[in-house]
Amino acid sequence: MQIHIVKIGGAVINEEKDLGAFLIRFASLPGSKILVHGGGRAATELSMSLGIETKMVNGRRITDQETLGVAVMVYSGLVNKNIVAKLQSLGLNALGVCGADLDVLRSIKRPVTDIDYGFVGDIEEVNGAVLSDLLAQKRIPVVSPITHDGEGQLLNTNADTIASRIAQTLSEDHEVHLHLCFEKAGVLQNADDDKSVLDQLTQEDFVEMLKDKAIHSGMIPKLQNAFEAKVAGVSSVQVCSFQTLGAAQSGTSIEL
Amino acid sequence: MQIHIVKIGGAVINEEKDLGAFLIRFASLPGSKILVHGGGRAATELSMSLGIETKMVNGRRITDQETLGVAVMVYSGLVNKNIVAKLQSLGLNALGVCGADLDVLRSIKRPVTDIDYGFVGDIEEVNGAVLSDLLAQKRIPVVSPITHDGEGQLLNTNADTIASRIAQTLSEDHEVHLHLCFEKAGVLQNADDDKSVLDQLTQEDFVEMLKDKAIHSGMIPKLQNAFEAKVAGVSSVQVCSFQTLGAAQSGTSIEL
Repeated sequence: MQIHIVKIGGAVINEEKDLGAFLIRFASLPGSKILVHGGGRAATELSMSLGIETKMVNGRRITDQETLGVAVMVYSGLVNKNIVAKLQSLGLNALGVCGADLDVLRSIKRPVTDIDYGFVGDIEEVNGAVLSDLLAQKRIPVVSPITHDGEGQLLNTNADTIASRIAQTLSEDHEVHLHLCFEKAGVLQNADDDKSVLDQLTQEDFVEMLKDKAIHSGMIPKLQNAFEAKVAGVSSVQVCSFQTLGAAQSGTSIEL
Repeated sequence: MQIHIVKIGGAVINEEKDLGAFLIRFASLPGSKILVHGGGRAATELSMSLGIETKMVNGRRITDQETLGVAVMVYSGLVNKNIVAKLQSLGLNALGVCGADLDVLRSIKRPVTDIDYGFVGDIEEVNGAVLSDLLAQKRIPVVSPITHDGEGQLLNTNADTIASRIAQTLSEDHEVHLHLCFEKAGVLQNADDDKSVLDQLTQEDFVEMLKDKAIHSGMIPKLQNAFEAKVAGVSSVQVCSFQTLGAAQSGTSIEL
């Protein structure tokens, strides 16, 4: 079957109006679909309200016990259930899951090297059978970025990585289209110019841009996830705005 | 099929050791099963940390927008996903759901009369077909006490009521056993004497005890839910300790 896997993150998650408009776009994608979401600013805001410091090392968030609790509450609770209720109101039979639900995403706690990331999970296994089965039953998985280790421990996992890994696994048996949506209109040639959207980005371009430091911070792992999906055989991979999801020409197409 | 529906609430939810012991008991119940949980103290604690006042009228919690957010985070996020991860580690294929997921529990916002309860939902419809289907697939629904109105609004709903209503709906096609578990050993003849557990409670006894004020506060709606289930044809209804769930003789049997 044809499957659209959409990742949504960033500020849109917390803006009722933007989120509503995006979900209508998502709902009108044809055929089977899966939504993977991040947490937006809500987790940081809740941590701040609770006086929990956000610990960063090399631009990556460290997940201690308290931060994990906040992530589970915000991602798998507030954000996930709000999206599910809204999709239900649009007539989609949404089912919110974290990685522990139906054992959808099994991970291992990231080994401590020079950095101890805390309760962060690196995906070991995507349960493609369960996801395919849900899609065959016309159910719409809405996946929050929390995984589990199979021994009762929840772990925090990057949502772009989850979307990419799910796309990779399902592409073994299906025609999969991966859409990584965010605030920008696509990959920018010049990070300071929102109009400089690239129609497509090849691996060669990517390496060049990395060398020129034209791409940085969160965009680097996002594009790595995008290329990994493409290399693994995902039919199409697109980095685009949440406002143009589903449009004929939308954002940047990732090419080998 | 034979279905055990278990409600767990109270302090056990927040005590790692007690919760673990209870979940092992739950896992060893034979056949199909559903777990419905409350939120324990965690919601109140989070509200306090956030400086949100808990508003009570006649001993019932009023759910404003902020309180609903906390309930969704704690019940459908933290508590639900922790239970699901733990059941998965025990080899049960748990699936955490709130009422919006797969449209399992549809409710209407309680009409404002002399009291405005806020975002509280009274159950309109239990999706027995979806629950039966999950059970037939050897999946274990873990239900958090959040419902939806079908128009995108999440609502707070009492967990005892959810357990009772699910039991009533499934008893139309199945042999259902409802277990309402809490800290006490069962219904007490004398609320001040933990040893005065009744083996059984009839409707007649209940009316007498209400008259004598031998039963009060939260115990009254719990027993009303228990009797409603029994009247509707649920095979057995039991009010018992989370520590004796599944034992041959456990707690108080609700009889007509």
